[in-house]
This record gives sequence, C-alpha cells and structure tokens, in this order.
Amino acid sequence: SRSVKLAVIRGDGIGPEVVAEAVKVLDAVVAGSELSIEKTEFSLGAARYLETGDVLTDTDLESIASHDAILLGAIGGVPGDPRLRDANIERGLLLKLRFSLDHYVNLRPTKVYPGVPSPLANAGNVDFVVVREGTEGPYVGNGGAIRVGTRAEVANEVSVNTAYGVERVVRHAFEIATQRRNKLTLVHKINVLTFAGKLWQRIVTEVAAEYPQVAVDYLHVDAATIFLVTDPARFDVIVTDNLFGDILTDLAGAISGGIGLAASANINPDGTFPSMFEPVHGSAPDIAGKQIADPTAAILSTALLLEHLGAPELAHRVVRAVDADIAGRSGSARTTAEVGDAIAALVTAAQ
Amino acid sequence: SRSVKLAVIRGDGIGPEVVAEAVKVLDAVVAGSELSIEKTEFSLGAARYLETGDVLTDTDLESIASHDAILLGAIGGVPGDPRLRDANIERGLLLKLRFSLDHYVNLRPTKVYPGVPSPLANAGNVDFVVVREGTEGPYVGNGGAIRVGTRAEVANEVSVNTAYGVERVVRHAFEIATQRRNKLTLVHKINVLTFAGKLWQRIVTEVAAEYPQVAVDYLHVDAATIFLVTDPARFDVIVTDNLFGDILTDLAGAISGGIGLAASANINPDGTFPSMFEPVHGSAPDIAGKQIADPTAAILSTALLLEHLGAPELAHRVVRAVDADIAGRSGSARTTAEVGDAIAALVTAAQ
Ligand SMILES: CC(C)[C@H](C(=O)O)[C@@H](O)C(=O)O
Ligand SMILES: CC(C)[C@H](C(=O)O)[C@@H](O)C(=O)O
Repeated sequence: SRSVKLAVIRGDGIGPEVVAEAVKVLDAVVAGSELSIEKTEFSLGAARYLETGDVLTDTDLESIASHDAILLGAIGGVPGDPRLRDANIERGLLLKLRFSLDHYVNLRPTKVYPGVPSPLANAGNVDFVVVREGTEGPYVGNGGAIRVGTRAEVANEVSVNTAYGVERVVRHAFEIATQRRNKLTLVHKINVLTFAGKLWQRIVTEVAAEYPQVAVDYLHVDAATIFLVTDPARFDVIVTDNLFGDILTDLAGAISGGIGLAASANINPDGTFPSMFEPVHGSAPDIAGKQIADPTAAILSTALLLEHLGAPELAHRVVRAVDADIAGRSGSARTTAEVGDAIAALVTAAQ
Repeated sequence: SRSVKLAVIRGDGIGPEVVAEAVKVLDAVVAGSELSIEKTEFSLGAARYLETGDVLTDTDLESIASHDAILLGAIGGVPGDPRLRDANIERGLLLKLRFSLDHYVNLRPTKVYPGVPSPLANAGNVDFVVVREGTEGPYVGNGGAIRVGTRAEVANEVSVNTAYGVERVVRHAFEIATQRRNKLTLVHKINVLTFAGKLWQRIVTEVAAEYPQVAVDYLHVDAATIFLVTDPARFDVIVTDNLFGDILTDLAGAISGGIGLAASANINPDGTFPSMFEPVHGSAPDIAGKQIADPTAAILSTALLLEHLGAPELAHRVVRAVDADIAGRSGSARTTAEVGDAIAALVTAAQ
C-alpha cells in the first residue's frame, strides 16, 4: 500500500461544494486499491482573507509544498467586493502557487461528450488537449505604473519568455502528442509579438526535429479562436503561452458543452514540487451554496491527479464513471451531491 | 459636389479581388451623389516587397497621409515563404499605418444576418461592436531579446498603456454606446495584468460617471470568449485593448457566419490623419486569384468609410444592398465579381 499526502484547498464560492464531490469519488476509487490518500485541509481564499487578512502565508506555502499533490476547488470572492479591492487573491494565491511550485505545464483536455449539448451546431469529434505554459509570459507580474491615478499615467506589463521555460513545456507537449494523434499546433501571435514569437517558433522547430512522427502546424491566436468554433476536431495538442492558453481553454470549455466539465492539471513534471489539480471554472459566488454547481470538472481533475500519481487504472475508472454518468444524464436537474453520489457509485460498482 | 481623395491599397492574396468589388460598389453609390471620389493606388504588400525590397517608404507614408481616407484589401504573403522571413510585412506596413496615422479607434461591428449560417446552434439576435484600442498595448513593438538563438535566450514583450490612450478610446466607445443600446462591456484581464487592468478600469469608471444612461459591466477576456459562443446577444459595445480586441473580433466574425462578412474601420477621430477601412480577414493566399473570396467584408468597409466621410445616407444604401443580397443568397456559388455586381446593382437600383 502506498500513501499519498494530498493538500486540499476547497476555496471560495462553489469550490467547497465541488471539492466535496471530488473527494467523495476519490475516496470511492482508492478504496480497496493499493493507494491510500491522507488529506490535509488548507483554508485559503477570499473568505480566509476577509477573516484573517492572510492570502497565503509562507508557512502555508511551505506546508502545502511538503505534500505529494494538491486538489483545489476555486478561488475568488464576490466580484467588486470593496473589501477585496486591495487583495489580489488570484495573483497572491492561485498564481503564487503555480509560480512557486513551478507548475510549468498547465494541462487542459477538452472533449465533446456524446449527448452533452454544445453551443456549436456541429461540434464534431472534439478531443484535444491544451498544453499551456504556466510560469512565464504576461503572467509573470513584471508590470509597473507611473503617475498612477493621473491623466499622465503609464502602465506597463512585461511578458517574459525564456528558452529554458519554452523548451521544457514544448518538449512535454511533443511527448503528449506522441501518446495521442501525433499532431501539435503552436498558437501564438508571432506577427505582432515578434520577439516572443520568434523564440516560441524556434524552439518548436528545434524540438520538432526530434519528433519526426509529429505533424506540426502554427496558428495565430486570433485564427485559432475561429477554428475552435468552426472546426475544433482539427486539434490534437495545442501548445501555447500562459495568456493565450488561458483564453483558448475557456473557449474550449464553452464549445465542448460547458466549463462545468473542464478539468485541469498544473504540473511540475520534475516532481520537485507537488502538482495541483483544479477545475477550469471559477468560484461562481452567484450560485454558491445552492447545490446546483456541476462537480464533474472537479471530479475529472481527480482523474488527472490519479494519472499523475501513477495510478492510470484508477484514473480510467473515474473517467469511465464520468462517461457513463454523462451518457445517462437526462434533462432533469440533480444537486451537486447527487451527481457526486452517482459517479462515486459507478466507480465503486466498477471495482 | 465634394471631392474626396481616397488612397487604395489592394495588397496581397485576395486583397485585389475584394477591393475591386468594394470600389465597384463605392463608385455605384456615389454616382449622382454630391460626393466624388478621387482614387490613388498604392502598390504595397508582400508582392511589392518581393519586387523592390520596400515595405513602406517614408515617401509612400507621406503621400498616403495626404489623402482623406484609405481603403485597404489585405496584407501578407504566403505563410512560411522564406523570402519574407526577414520582412515583417504586418508590423512594417499594416501596423505602421495604424500607428503612424494614430488610428486609435479600431471599430469592428458584428451582426448575425438572417439566413447566414452561424457555427452556433443558437446565435440569437447578435448585433454588437468591438471598439478595439489601436495604438497601444502589446502591439507597440517595445519588445526585445537577449542571447537570441541560444538556450539562454530571454525574449520580452512590453505592453504600454497610457491614461491618454485609454481615455480617448473609452470616451469614443461611450459615445457609440449612446447611439446604440446604451450598454458597454470592458474586456480585460485585470486580475492578472493588474497595472494595465487598474488603468483601464479606473478610466472606464471615471468616464462612466459622465454617461449615467450607459450600463457598464466588466468581463475577463477568457470569460468574454465563453459569452461570445453561449450568449453573444448580450453584447452591445465592447471596449478593449489592442490584443484582446484582435482575438475577440476574429471570434466574433466566426460566430456571426464568417470572417467574410466582417468589416472594420481604423479611425483617427481627430481627423489629423486619414482613417483606414479594411475587411477583418487576411490575404488568404491559398484561395487568391480564384474568384471565390467573399467581397462582402470589403464592401461593408466602404459603408464604414462613407459613414466616416459624413455621408450616412450613402452608407445606409450600401448596408441595405448588402442586407438584401445576403437575404437572397442561395447555396449556389457566385464568383467574387458576381457578388460585387449584384450588390452594385442593388445600390444603383435603390438610388
Ligand atoms: C483566476 C485566473 C488568475 C486564472 C488564470 O488566468 O490563469 C483562471 O482564469 C484560470 O484559467 O485558471
Ligand atoms: C495582421 C495582423 C497584424 C492584424 C492584427 O493583429 O491587428 C490582423 O489580425 C487584424 O486583426 O487586423
């Protein structure tokens, strides 16, 4: 039996509700397996900040870093809450974790489930994964402003891109492509962001030479959004920078039938730090506590977690249970807990 | 009779084909009006560069700047053409024009035409306009790189945002909102790009106080892409930065039935420099010369041109002709010239 230390950050809004179901399914699937999961709860997010003034203390961060993996719900208070104006919870907590724990691969798979309505008239057979860089680009926080609040204000944001950072994520994307349909699309805006663009393009060309079996193409980010609505089935692996990846994966979630199904993994492939698994959706404070949030994205994030922990059979069992549950979904509404119960039961039955 | 000096840049790929039809319709609509249009052709683009090595000479730029307005087809050679590797035609020509001529309002209307198939199952009543900032943001070209070509390369891109630049475009967007449905959505990524984001948000809040009749909301760019496919009818006026505007307007074109219908105006509202009117689509070299490109976007760009020239009745005549042509479109293919002929005939008949 192998014991895994899991840090659990339920967070704000619908976070606690969807994490409850993810944990339920996780417990069900590891029951009787050689894996045992030891959870530590971390109360973090807007609620914690409002209570204590802390966003993420060094002690919290150190303690989280000592775990084998992290399961996160969602972070963020009520938009426009004046008490949160001076705390940027996203930068100070979510991005702080991704950057401090060197989550340079932000993995976001998208697939269209039969029976799940897509906003697209004809989505086709959609099954791709976005490999989003997680530690560089416009997300580094290297901006600044002068003459703030005046008519002469200048506010800059710097996107930092390194060969080191681009190469490691591009390599990872090529590896994933070889385990899939051997197709990789670089998305960037090289005709405008020429310096960063040339770097990304050079690295992709160089690494591509080592993967002759992988067909490589390139799309500008604007054109990529067009293909995501007109021909999403053309994609297999997309590799892209932090900001473009953020934009494309929300769109990808939407066309595949809703951000309620979109799971993600923030991975540190070296294993130096724990990787973090979270639904792509946010905290949705407007529907929090109503038991109407879809926990599927959080549950699918546990499949990515199990895969990462080297338990692919358990991961597949979760995925198959979700597939079966989705296939059986009728129009009638279920509570968040009912969805979790159903998937947990399917997982148990498949044992 | 009023004479207008129009600089015509047909450009590359399908540019010349679609501009031919736009000019045909423009000639038809001004015939017998008090407006007369005096055209000067400028041979610019990838083809010109390959012939002469020039992208945009100072003389060309000065000469173009002395006109009242510019009609542009599309710019860009065959992707990957090694002879174009060292010339960035987009930056050196298209963006050079937008920046030199201070086109700070990049206006991109989107509407769904009855009968035009959208990739969305249920597009709804879509009619919005994106007011994209045109002279700042990540487009300024203030990037740089060190140790280029090595494993230690660092490539930076700087997004520059000024109160001066943001305020003028935001004011323009509010003015447009008052002429429409009094709704304005700021799109940015303020939780990550905190310096630029705070500036945009402050200016929108300040200007909003002068427009109490306009309802204002805010969306992160990632969330905005979701709404563009799930509920595009929610938008009236979107104001956003240069890069987000680029991405959102390609997506907007796609959901409204194709980039072949998307017109745009690069406006210098002060009138210090000529404004420039162009379809949103690119040069599409793969279909160039085949007479299969849709000239509608270029033709609708002449409506924006006529509006800008203070001839709204002529503009409306073009729009109505396009509406009528689109309403009568069957599945059967017409050549680029046939579409132009049909719309020109409708424009003439409506006189
Ligand atoms: C909350 C925000 C900082 C985050 C991001 O931009 O990465 C979110 O949108 C996501 O995609 O995980
Ligand atoms: C060709 C390119 C530089 C341009 C842009 O990014 O602005 C185009 O995509 C557009 O939207 O007009």
